Amino acid sequence: MPDSLHHPAASGELVDYFVERDGVKCAGIHLLLELWDAKRLNDAAHIEAALKAAVQGAGATLLHIHLHQFSSSGGLSGVAVLAESHISIHTWPERDYAAIDIFMCGECDPHQAVPALRDALQPGTLQVNEIKRGIVT
Amino acid sequence: MPDSLHHPAASGELVDYFVERDGVKCAGIHLLLELWDAKRLNDAAHIEAALKAAVQGAGATLLHIHLHQFSSSGGLSGVAVLAESHISIHTWPERDYAAIDIFMCGECDPHQAVPALRDALQPGTLQVNEIKRGIVT
Repeated sequence: MPDSLHHPAASGELVDYFVERDGVKCAGIHLLLELWDAKRLNDAAHIEAALKAAVQGAGATLLHIHLHQFSSSGGLSGVAVLAESHISIHTWPERDYAAIDIFMCGECDPHQAVPALRDALQPGTLQVNEIKRGIVT
Repeated sequence: MPDSLHHPAASGELVDYFVERDGVKCAGIHLLLELWDAKRLNDAAHIEAALKAAVQGAGATLLHIHLHQFSSSGGLSGVAVLAESHISIHTWPERDYAAIDIFMCGECDPHQAVPALRDALQPGTLQVNEIKRGIVT
Protein backbone atom coordinates (compact mmCIF):
# COMPACT_ATOMS: atom_id res chain seq x y z
CA MET A 1 0.00 0.00 0.00
CA PRO A 2 2.57 2.66 0.88
CA ASP A 3 3.98 4.68 -1.95
CA SER A 4 7.45 4.58 -0.57
CA LEU A 5 7.89 0.89 0.09
CA HIS A 6 9.87 -1.69 -1.82
CA HIS A 7 9.02 -3.59 -4.97
CA PRO A 8 8.68 -0.80 -7.52
CA ALA A 9 6.59 -2.30 -10.26
CA ALA A 10 7.53 -2.48 -13.87
CA SER A 11 5.02 -0.58 -15.94
CA GLY A 12 1.65 -2.23 -15.67
CA GLU A 13 2.87 -4.91 -13.32
CA LEU A 14 0.63 -5.65 -10.33
CA VAL A 15 2.41 -4.89 -7.07
CA ASP A 16 1.77 -7.08 -4.06
CA TYR A 17 2.12 -5.15 -0.80
CA PHE A 18 1.33 -8.12 1.41
CA VAL A 19 4.25 -9.33 3.51
CA GLU A 20 5.40 -12.56 5.14
CA ARG A 21 5.46 -12.67 8.96
CA ASP A 22 6.46 -15.83 10.85
CA GLY A 23 5.97 -17.74 7.61
CA VAL A 24 2.46 -16.33 7.16
CA LYS A 25 1.47 -14.08 4.25
CA CYS A 26 -0.65 -11.18 5.49
CA ALA A 27 -1.44 -7.48 5.12
CA GLY A 28 0.32 -6.49 8.33
CA ILE A 29 0.49 -6.69 12.11
CA HIS A 30 -2.02 -5.03 14.42
CA LEU A 31 -1.08 -4.51 18.06
CA LEU A 32 -3.69 -3.69 20.70
CA LEU A 33 -2.11 -2.19 23.81
CA GLU A 34 -3.77 -1.88 27.20
CA LEU A 35 -2.05 0.60 29.53
CA TRP A 36 -3.03 0.72 33.19
CA ASP A 37 -1.73 3.05 35.92
CA ALA A 38 -0.43 5.26 33.13
CA LYS A 39 0.71 8.88 33.48
CA ARG A 40 0.04 12.20 31.74
CA LEU A 41 -3.07 10.91 29.95
CA ASN A 42 -4.59 14.40 29.77
CA ASP A 43 -1.45 16.11 28.42
CA ALA A 44 -2.16 16.66 24.73
CA ALA A 45 1.25 18.03 23.75
CA HIS A 46 2.98 15.18 25.54
CA ILE A 47 0.83 12.56 23.86
CA GLU A 48 1.28 14.11 20.42
CA ALA A 49 5.04 14.01 20.97
CA ALA A 50 4.77 10.39 22.13
CA LEU A 51 2.87 9.41 18.97
CA LYS A 52 5.49 11.07 16.80
CA ALA A 53 8.28 9.35 18.71
CA ALA A 54 6.49 6.02 18.29
CA VAL A 55 6.20 6.54 14.54
CA GLN A 56 9.90 7.41 14.39
CA GLY A 57 10.80 4.41 16.57
CA ALA A 58 9.19 2.08 14.04
CA GLY A 59 10.82 3.87 11.11
CA ALA A 60 7.36 4.66 9.76
CA THR A 61 6.21 7.68 7.76
CA LEU A 62 3.72 10.11 9.33
CA LEU A 63 1.12 11.45 6.89
CA HIS A 64 -1.40 13.09 9.23
CA ILE A 65 -1.95 13.50 12.96
CA HIS A 66 -5.02 14.66 14.84
CA LEU A 67 -5.78 14.90 18.54
CA HIS A 68 -9.03 15.77 20.27
CA GLN A 69 -9.31 16.53 23.97
CA PHE A 70 -12.58 16.02 25.81
CA SER A 71 -13.41 18.89 28.08
CA SER A 72 -15.41 16.76 30.47
CA SER A 73 -12.59 14.46 31.55
CA GLY A 74 -9.43 15.76 29.91
CA GLY A 75 -9.30 12.42 28.05
CA LEU A 76 -7.74 12.41 24.63
CA SER A 77 -8.37 10.70 21.31
CA GLY A 78 -5.50 10.80 18.85
CA VAL A 79 -4.77 9.21 15.51
CA ALA A 80 -1.63 9.18 13.43
CA VAL A 81 -2.19 8.13 9.81
CA LEU A 82 0.95 6.50 8.42
CA ALA A 83 2.20 5.38 5.05
CA GLU A 84 2.17 2.00 6.82
CA SER A 85 -1.41 2.27 8.30
CA HIS A 86 -2.04 3.97 11.69
CA ILE A 87 -1.55 4.44 15.42
CA SER A 88 -4.50 5.44 17.60
CA ILE A 89 -4.73 6.33 21.29
CA HIS A 90 -7.71 6.90 23.55
CA THR A 91 -7.19 7.85 27.18
CA TRP A 92 -9.35 7.71 30.29
CA PRO A 93 -7.43 9.81 32.84
CA GLU A 94 -10.04 9.12 35.51
CA ARG A 95 -9.09 5.43 35.25
CA ASP A 96 -5.37 5.97 34.49
CA TYR A 97 -6.12 3.81 31.43
CA ALA A 98 -5.22 4.17 27.76
CA ALA A 99 -6.13 2.00 24.77
CA ILE A 100 -3.63 2.16 21.92
CA ASP A 101 -3.60 0.33 18.61
CA ILE A 102 -0.71 0.17 16.20
CA PHE A 103 -1.34 -1.25 12.74
CA MET A 104 1.58 -1.47 10.36
CA CYS A 105 1.89 -3.05 6.96
CA GLY A 106 5.00 -3.30 4.84
CA GLU A 107 8.39 -3.90 6.37
CA CYS A 108 7.80 -1.82 9.51
CA ASP A 109 7.65 -3.63 12.85
CA PRO A 110 4.91 -2.17 15.08
CA HIS A 111 6.64 -3.57 18.18
CA GLN A 112 9.36 -0.98 17.58
CA ALA A 113 6.74 1.73 18.22
CA VAL A 114 5.96 0.46 21.72
CA PRO A 115 9.02 1.66 23.71
CA ALA A 116 8.39 5.35 22.96
CA LEU A 117 4.79 5.02 24.16
CA ARG A 118 5.80 3.07 27.26
CA ASP A 119 8.50 5.63 28.11
CA ALA A 120 6.09 8.54 27.64
CA LEU A 121 3.12 7.14 29.54
CA GLN A 122 4.93 4.97 32.10
CA PRO A 123 2.16 2.42 32.60
CA GLY A 124 2.27 0.26 35.71
CA THR A 125 0.95 -2.53 33.51
CA LEU A 126 1.22 -2.87 29.73
CA GLN A 127 -0.52 -5.67 27.86
CA VAL A 128 0.13 -6.21 24.15
CA ASN A 129 -2.14 -8.31 21.95
CA GLU A 130 -0.80 -9.06 18.46
CA ILE A 131 -3.15 -9.86 15.60
CA LYS A 132 -2.18 -10.59 12.02
CA ARG A 133 -4.50 -8.82 9.60
CA GLY A 134 -5.42 -10.10 6.15
CA ILE A 135 -3.97 -13.57 6.47
CA VAL A 136 -3.78 -15.33 3.09
CA THR A 137 -4.15 -19.09 3.40
CA MET B 1 -14.59 10.11 27.76
CA PRO B 2 -17.07 11.72 25.36
CA ASP B 3 -18.37 15.14 26.24
CA SER B 4 -21.86 14.33 25.15
CA LEU B 5 -22.48 11.08 26.93
CA HIS B 6 -24.59 10.36 29.99
CA HIS B 7 -23.82 10.83 33.66
CA PRO B 8 -23.26 14.57 33.87
CA ALA B 9 -21.17 15.01 36.97
CA ALA B 10 -22.02 17.16 39.88
CA SER B 11 -19.34 19.75 40.41
CA GLY B 12 -16.09 18.03 41.31
CA GLU B 13 -17.56 14.55 41.10
CA LEU B 14 -15.45 11.96 39.29
CA VAL B 15 -17.25 10.63 36.23
CA ASP B 16 -16.78 7.01 35.21
CA TYR B 17 -17.10 6.54 31.46
CA PHE B 18 -16.52 2.79 31.54
CA VAL B 19 -19.52 0.71 30.59
CA GLU B 20 -20.90 -2.76 31.24
CA ARG B 21 -21.02 -5.21 28.32
CA ASP B 22 -22.24 -8.77 28.74
CA GLY B 23 -21.81 -8.31 32.47
CA VAL B 24 -18.21 -7.14 32.03
CA LYS B 25 -17.04 -3.63 32.96
CA CYS B 26 -14.79 -2.22 30.24
CA ALA B 27 -13.78 0.86 28.27
CA GLY B 28 -15.53 -0.23 25.10
CA ILE B 29 -15.78 -2.69 22.24
CA HIS B 30 -13.23 -2.94 19.44
CA LEU B 31 -14.21 -4.73 16.25
CA LEU B 32 -11.62 -5.84 13.71
CA LEU B 33 -13.18 -6.48 10.30
CA GLU B 34 -11.57 -8.43 7.47
CA LEU B 35 -13.20 -7.81 4.08
CA TRP B 36 -12.28 -10.01 1.13
CA ASP B 37 -13.49 -9.78 -2.49
CA ALA B 38 -14.62 -6.25 -1.67
CA LYS B 39 -15.57 -3.55 -4.19
CA ARG B 40 -14.68 0.09 -4.82
CA LEU B 41 -11.62 0.00 -2.57
CA ASN B 42 -9.90 2.77 -4.53
CA ASP B 43 -12.92 5.12 -4.58
CA ALA B 44 -12.10 7.77 -1.98
CA ALA B 45 -15.41 9.65 -2.12
CA HIS B 46 -17.34 6.40 -1.83
CA ILE B 47 -15.31 5.24 1.16
CA GLU B 48 -15.61 8.60 2.91
CA ALA B 49 -19.39 8.41 2.47
CA ALA B 50 -19.34 4.83 3.78
CA LEU B 51 -17.43 5.89 6.90
CA LYS B 52 -19.90 8.68 7.55
CA ALA B 53 -22.83 6.30 7.05
CA ALA B 54 -21.22 3.83 9.46
CA VAL B 55 -20.83 6.54 12.10
CA GLN B 56 -24.45 7.50 11.62
CA GLY B 57 -25.55 3.86 11.73
CA ALA B 58 -24.04 3.50 15.18
CA GLY B 59 -25.51 6.78 16.36
CA ALA B 60 -21.99 8.06 17.01
CA THR B 61 -20.63 11.61 16.75
CA LEU B 62 -18.04 12.41 14.07
CA LEU B 63 -15.32 14.83 15.23
CA HIS B 64 -12.76 14.54 12.43
CA ILE B 65 -12.27 12.55 9.25
CA HIS B 66 -9.17 12.13 7.10
CA LEU B 67 -8.47 10.01 4.02
CA HIS B 68 -5.21 9.44 2.20
CA GLN B 69 -4.96 7.74 -1.19
CA PHE B 70 -1.74 6.03 -2.25
CA SER B 71 -0.80 6.86 -5.79
CA SER B 72 1.04 3.60 -6.32
CA SER B 73 -1.92 1.27 -5.82
CA GLY B 74 -4.99 3.48 -5.39
CA GLY B 75 -5.25 2.02 -1.88
CA LEU B 76 -6.77 4.19 0.81
CA SER B 77 -6.18 4.85 4.49
CA GLY B 78 -8.99 6.59 6.30
CA VAL B 79 -9.73 7.44 9.91
CA ALA B 80 -12.83 8.87 11.52
CA VAL B 81 -12.28 10.24 15.03
CA LEU B 82 -15.46 9.98 17.06
CA ALA B 83 -16.69 11.24 20.38
CA GLU B 84 -16.88 7.50 21.06
CA SER B 85 -13.33 6.59 19.80
CA HIS B 86 -12.67 5.81 16.09
CA ILE B 87 -13.20 3.92 12.85
CA SER B 88 -10.26 3.21 10.56
CA ILE B 89 -10.05 1.62 7.12
CA HIS B 90 -7.09 0.52 5.04
CA THR B 91 -7.63 -0.94 1.57
CA TRP B 92 -5.51 -3.07 -0.76
CA PRO B 93 -7.38 -2.87 -4.09
CA GLU B 94 -4.86 -5.21 -5.72
CA ARG B 95 -6.00 -7.91 -3.27
CA ASP B 96 -9.67 -6.81 -3.06
CA TYR B 97 -9.00 -6.67 0.68
CA ALA B 98 -9.79 -4.08 3.33
CA ALA B 99 -8.95 -4.00 7.05
CA ILE B 100 -11.38 -1.98 9.16
CA ASP B 101 -11.45 -1.40 12.87
CA ILE B 102 -14.29 0.12 14.84
CA PHE B 103 -13.67 1.09 18.45
CA MET B 104 -16.55 2.54 20.40
CA CYS B 105 -16.88 3.40 24.04
CA GLY B 106 -19.95 4.66 25.84
CA GLU B 107 -23.39 3.47 24.92
CA CYS B 108 -22.77 3.14 21.18
CA ASP B 109 -22.80 -0.34 19.65
CA PRO B 110 -20.02 -0.72 17.04
CA HIS B 111 -21.88 -3.63 15.42
CA GLN B 112 -24.43 -1.07 14.25
CA ALA B 113 -21.69 0.53 12.13
CA VAL B 114 -21.05 -2.67 10.16
CA PRO B 115 -24.08 -2.78 7.80
CA ALA B 116 -23.22 0.56 6.14
CA LEU B 117 -19.67 -0.64 5.47
CA ARG B 118 -20.86 -4.02 4.19
CA ASP B 119 -23.42 -2.38 1.91
CA ALA B 120 -20.85 0.06 0.53
CA LEU B 121 -17.99 -2.37 -0.05
CA GLN B 122 -19.97 -5.54 -0.77
CA PRO B 123 -17.36 -8.01 0.44
CA GLY B 124 -17.63 -11.62 -0.67
CA THR B 125 -16.43 -12.55 2.80
CA LEU B 126 -16.65 -10.47 5.98
CA GLN B 127 -15.03 -11.63 9.21
CA VAL B 128 -15.64 -9.75 12.46
CA ASN B 129 -13.45 -10.16 15.52
CA GLU B 130 -14.76 -8.54 18.72
CA ILE B 131 -12.40 -7.53 21.51
CA LYS B 132 -13.35 -5.87 24.77
CA ARG B 133 -10.87 -3.12 25.64
CA GLY B 134 -9.96 -2.06 29.16
CA ILE B 135 -11.62 -4.90 31.02
CA VAL B 136 -11.85 -4.21 34.75
CA THR B 137 -11.66 -7.36 36.81
